[in-house]
Amino acid sequence: MTGEREARMGLCALGSQGAPALARAVVEFGAVDVWEGLLRAGDTTRFSRLAASVDITAVTSATAACGARFVVPGDDEWPAALAGLEDVEVAGQAGVPFGLWLKGQPLASAGGVAVVGARACTGYGERAAAELSADLAVGGRPIISGLAYGIDAAAHRGALGVGGYTAAVVASGVDRPYPAGNATLAAAVSRGGTIISELPPGALPARGAFLARNRIIAALAEAVIVVEAALRSGAKNTASWGNAVGRRVLAVPGPITSSLSSTPHRLIRDGEATLVGGAEDVERELAPLGAAADGPTRGDRRPIDELAQELREVREAVAAGERVTAAELGRRTGQNTVTALALAAELVELGWLDGEGGVFALPSRPTPVRAERR
Amino acid sequence: MTGEREARMGLCALGSQGAPALARAVVEFGAVDVWEGLLRAGDTTRFSRLAASVDITAVTSATAACGARFVVPGDDEWPAALAGLEDVEVAGQAGVPFGLWLKGQPLASAGGVAVVGARACTGYGERAAAELSADLAVGGRPIISGLAYGIDAAAHRGALGVGGYTAAVVASGVDRPYPAGNATLAAAVSRGGTIISELPPGALPARGAFLARNRIIAALAEAVIVVEAALRSGAKNTASWGNAVGRRVLAVPGPITSSLSSTPHRLIRDGEATLVGGAEDVERELAPLGAAADGPTRGDRRPIDELAQELREVREAVAAGERVTAAELGRRTGQNTVTALALAAELVELGWLDGEGGVFALPSRPTPVRAERR
Repeated sequence: MTGEREARMGLCALGSQGAPALARAVVEFGAVDVWEGLLRAGDTTRFSRLAASVDITAVTSATAACGARFVVPGDDEWPAALAGLEDVEVAGQAGVPFGLWLKGQPLASAGGVAVVGARACTGYGERAAAELSADLAVGGRPIISGLAYGIDAAAHRGALGVGGYTAAVVASGVDRPYPAGNATLAAAVSRGGTIISELPPGALPARGAFLARNRIIAALAEAVIVVEAALRSGAKNTASWGNAVGRRVLAVPGPITSSLSSTPHRLIRDGEATLVGGAEDVERELAPLGAAADGPTRGDRRPIDELAQELREVREAVAAGERVTAAELGRRTGQNTVTALALAAELVELGWLDGEGGVFALPSRPTPVRAERR
Repeated sequence: MTGEREARMGLCALGSQGAPALARAVVEFGAVDVWEGLLRAGDTTRFSRLAASVDITAVTSATAACGARFVVPGDDEWPAALAGLEDVEVAGQAGVPFGLWLKGQPLASAGGVAVVGARACTGYGERAAAELSADLAVGGRPIISGLAYGIDAAAHRGALGVGGYTAAVVASGVDRPYPAGNATLAAAVSRGGTIISELPPGALPARGAFLARNRIIAALAEAVIVVEAALRSGAKNTASWGNAVGRRVLAVPGPITSSLSSTPHRLIRDGEATLVGGAEDVERELAPLGAAADGPTRGDRRPIDELAQELREVREAVAAGERVTAAELGRRTGQNTVTALALAAELVELGWLDGEGGVFALPSRPTPVRAERR
C-alpha cells in the first residue's frame, strides 16, 4: 500500500507533467489509486510502462542528496494558488502539479509577480526587466521566473540585487537547473530564494516540460508581466496561462521598431494584457500586498506579539502616517540597511507594513488580527 | 447688409477662435446676425470692440495677395467632418470654425489620419512618425498635422517623401505658417498638400490659438495618432479632441525608459487610445478607404466612365484578384512610378481601388455606382 506522498512522487517521476488525462484521473480517483492502478496495469499503456520504471526509493535518496525537499498539496509549504490550475487547459496541457521539489529558502510566492520574456532579449528589455523586478522586490513582492537566459535571468538578478526574494521554476531537476550557463545564477537563487520543479532530481529538460512549467509560473504569481517577446514565444504561452487561471496579465511596451515588442504590443492591443511602464503601474493593478487573496498566507497576519523580536522592532520603528526608507529603519533599529530591508519586506509579506519602491509605511487599512478573520 | 461669407470672414478675423460663447451664438443666430450685432454693439463688449477693428476688404485683399482662398460651410471644399465639432467642448474651447483659409492643393482630408506628438521628440519618435505617415500616405490616406517641430514635421515629411498628400493646420495666417524655422517644409506642404488656418493672413500665433487649432486637426481626421508626448503636451489635447468628437485615438508605444512615452502609454493604459505598432494596425482600426463615412466625398464613387482618362487607365490596369505595386502600375500604363502612385492613391480615395503599403487591388466589396447609393 503506497502513501499519498510516494504516489505523488511516482506520478511526478513519470515525466508526463501537463498531460490532461493524468491530471484529470488524479482529481477523480486520487493520487494513490491512480499510481497503484498504473503499477498494476503492467505493460498496457504508456503511463503504466513509465510507472514500472520509477524507483521511488532512488528518487527519495536523490532528493535528500541534493538538499531538496518534496512537497505535496496539504503541506505547509505547498502554494495554495496552484489550485487555480484545476480544470484549466492551455495548448493541450493542464493540471495541478502532483508535487513539487523545492531547493533553497522556504517558498514564499504569495503576492508574487512573474516576469517573463525572450531569451535573446535586447539591452532595453534586460534593463526594463531588472529594474521592474528590483522595484517590485524592494516593495516586498516575490519575483517568479523561469531561469532562462535573457529576460528571466534579468528578473531574478534584479530581485536578488536588492536583497529581494525570487523563485525560479525550472523544467529539469532542481539539482541541475537548465540552462547550465546560468548555474551561478541558479546557486544565487537557491541562496536568496527557491528553485522549484515538478520533475525529480536528475531530470533533464524535455521539450514539453518548458510549456508545462509555464503554467506553474503563471499560477504561482498574482500577475504575469511580459517584457520582451517575439511573436512565437514561451512568454506568450505563460501569458495565456495567466489569463486562463485568472491572473492579471501585464506587458511592458517597447520600441515599435523592435520585433521583440511584437508580443507585448499585440497582447495590449488585443486586450489580453494591460500596459505597465513601471512598478507603480504594477502595484496599481494588484491588490495591496498582504490583502486577503487566494493564498492562505495572504493577509493572515499573526497578532503583533507573535512576531519574532527583530520583526516586531522594525514594525514598531514605523510611526503612523510616516513613510520610512530601509536605511532609516536600519538606523532606528541598529541593523544594517540590508537586514532592515529584508525584515521590512517580510513585514510587508505578512501584511504588517505597506512597502513600495523601498519606502515603508503602516498599512492604510486597519490591521486585522487572526481572531477577526476566523 | 453683410453676406454670409463676409460675416464669417469677419468672425474669423476677431481672433477669438474656440470661444464657446461665440461659437454657440453663430449656431443659434447665424453668422450674419452675430456679425452685424457685434458691429452695432459698438464699444460694449470685447468681441464688439474687436469687430470694430476688422477691415474685411483688407482681409479679402490679403487672402488674394498670398494666393490663399477662404472657404465656409457649404462650399465644395469645406470639410463636412468639421460638423463633428458642434456642441463639443474640451478644455474650455469649442466650436466649428467659422471659415478656413486654404493655401495649396485642394483640401482632401477624407479618410485622413492625424499624426501628432512632441516638438522635442527623439530620433525614435521621429522615425516612427515618418515611417507610419509614409506607409499610410502610400496607402492613400491624407496625413494631417500641425507643422510644429518634431513629430508634426516628421509626419508631413513622411507623407511628402512618398508623394502622398498632407495637410498642415496652423495657428497663424497661412501666409506666415509658424514656426518660421519650418518655412521650407511649409512651402513643400503647400505644393504637395494644403496649409489650413482659421486665422486670417497676417495673423501671428497667439497662445490659445494652438489649442483651438488642435480641435481642427482632430476633427478633420478619421483617427488621431499620438507618437511621442510628455505628460503635459499639446498632443494630449489633440487626443482629447479626438475622443470628444468620436474619432479613433491611437498611440504608438515606446521605451518605458523615455519620458516621451508617458502620454502614449498612459492613453493606452487608461483605455483612451488603442496601441498601434504600424500602418497595418492603423488600417485595421479604420474603415477601409473609400467606405461610406461622415465625409460626403467618401465612397461616393462616380461610374467608371466618368473618371478622367488617366485615372481610368490605371484602374483598368488592375485585374481582379491581383495585388499590384505602383511601380508595376507605372509600367503597365506608361507613367512614371510617382505619377502612377498619385493616380492610384486618387483611385483609392475615390473608392475605385483598395491600397495598403503601396500595393493596390480591386476593392473587396462590390463597386457601387452612384445610382445605387441614392
